[in-house]
Amino acid sequence: MALCYKNAMSNAKTNERTVTACLIIIGNEILSGRTQDANLAYLAKWLNEEVGIQMVEARVIPDIEQTIVDTVNECRAKFDYVFTTGGIGPTHDDITGACVAKAFGVPHELNPEAHEILKEYYGPEGLSSARARMAFTPKGAILIDNPISKAPGYQMENVFVMAGIPQIMQVMCDGLKHSLSGGKPVRSRSVRTELPESRIAKFLTELDERYDNVDIGSYPFYTNGKAGTSLVVRTTDEDLLIEVSDEIFQAAVELGGNPAYEDNS
Amino acid sequence: MALCYKNAMSNAKTNERTVTACLIIIGNEILSGRTQDANLAYLAKWLNEEVGIQMVEARVIPDIEQTIVDTVNECRAKFDYVFTTGGIGPTHDDITGACVAKAFGVPHELNPEAHEILKEYYGPEGLSSARARMAFTPKGAILIDNPISKAPGYQMENVFVMAGIPQIMQVMCDGLKHSLSGGKPVRSRSVRTELPESRIAKFLTELDERYDNVDIGSYPFYTNGKAGTSLVVRTTDEDLLIEVSDEIFQAAVELGGNPAYEDNS
Repeated sequence: MALCYKNAMSNAKTNERTVTACLIIIGNEILSGRTQDANLAYLAKWLNEEVGIQMVEARVIPDIEQTIVDTVNECRAKFDYVFTTGGIGPTHDDITGACVAKAFGVPHELNPEAHEILKEYYGPEGLSSARARMAFTPKGAILIDNPISKAPGYQMENVFVMAGIPQIMQVMCDGLKHSLSGGKPVRSRSVRTELPESRIAKFLTELDERYDNVDIGSYPFYTNGKAGTSLVVRTTDEDLLIEVSDEIFQAAVELGGNPAYEDNS
Repeated sequence: MALCYKNAMSNAKTNERTVTACLIIIGNEILSGRTQDANLAYLAKWLNEEVGIQMVEARVIPDIEQTIVDTVNECRAKFDYVFTTGGIGPTHDDITGACVAKAFGVPHELNPEAHEILKEYYGPEGLSSARARMAFTPKGAILIDNPISKAPGYQMENVFVMAGIPQIMQVMCDGLKHSLSGGKPVRSRSVRTELPESRIAKFLTELDERYDNVDIGSYPFYTNGKAGTSLVVRTTDEDLLIEVSDEIFQAAVELGGNPAYEDNS
């Protein structure tokens, strides 16, 4: 069970170890329930598929300086890569940059390169003091390109400070590939069945015990008042992926579960 | 700025302190990006509106025993209430109950009350060993009713173990109200404008400095390639809520931002 996560925690010293990431979602609006986060799902898939990095934790925290500083410092020590989203705009509640600077113990200062980018975009007259705030970064930051609204994200060692707006966060990813070093991507294959979880649980337990390097997830759902279960196999080994998911499919047939393979990434 | 969160952290000893909650979302399927969490937004709103409890942190963690145990123990010491979602079904990857028991240092054992509920639902013959797994709880747990699929959630001191399926998590909330003790709910009012954040940033900074007990959030968005900003005022004080949001509305009019009040909870 749980290849990717087990490796992340226990096999960190082997050659084939999983490269791990944590996302820190900064923003009162997510915690109040006003806004639904869309960055975790996107970033998790992108990191796995494009660079073979596994998202192994995410935290949603409020716009409080000490909380951001502490969380950044805890996570950058614990995971290979840390991403933050939110709080890099021009308003009073955008405090991520200052907090990341504090976490690294460096000044939060005008970044000449970012300043040039914004000056070119807004024109020298349009660059108000509010907009110029977006040209501040922790000292030593490497900029991340923002083709949409220009205000850049940035990298401080293994911490990547990204925009909170999903469209901008997503285009920022495009420029990141060369800065990240991952492993083998985890592939998944899902079998959707009309069985309630409890009908297939015993088989899954036995299957899980037989395969060490495969993560078998069981996800119940309700559609029109009827219970069903999606069984998701995840592994970096393509042969095992087919073998284990085919076994699940066959078991579901025998249990009368009317299985079907689902689309997978 | 940030009344609710500041209070949560600093005014814990005053009479009007904010009552805090943390949600621990347990599940590889959220971290892989396969499934979009829907429980944080629902629970955050429900807790605030129904019982006056503020969600101040959320964590998404994998199905790894030590991670779950450590996170539960850290969070139950740090926040007034902790909620977990996910991992209480009948399959091999449902390990939340055993982990919560370990966190509390008590056995994970058959709960006679839960066993009766499941026996009645499935009939004595239908209660397979897989289904009977759902009758196990940490010793001393108080059950939380699940009117949909019967397998109960449970409370251990300030930790509430809930289902991961949103429909079930939501009906479980209905039975919780009497077990939770909150404060004043935070009310919010939003002004949607056609201004980019940077146009209204200076005004917001000044406004934020004038009001101590109000959280003013600025959330940029893009619609049809045009930038706009929603300004969200949050406070437990209804008079302040109207006063501050009306000031923002007026400022947006003067800046040509074509403001409109948005629907709010």
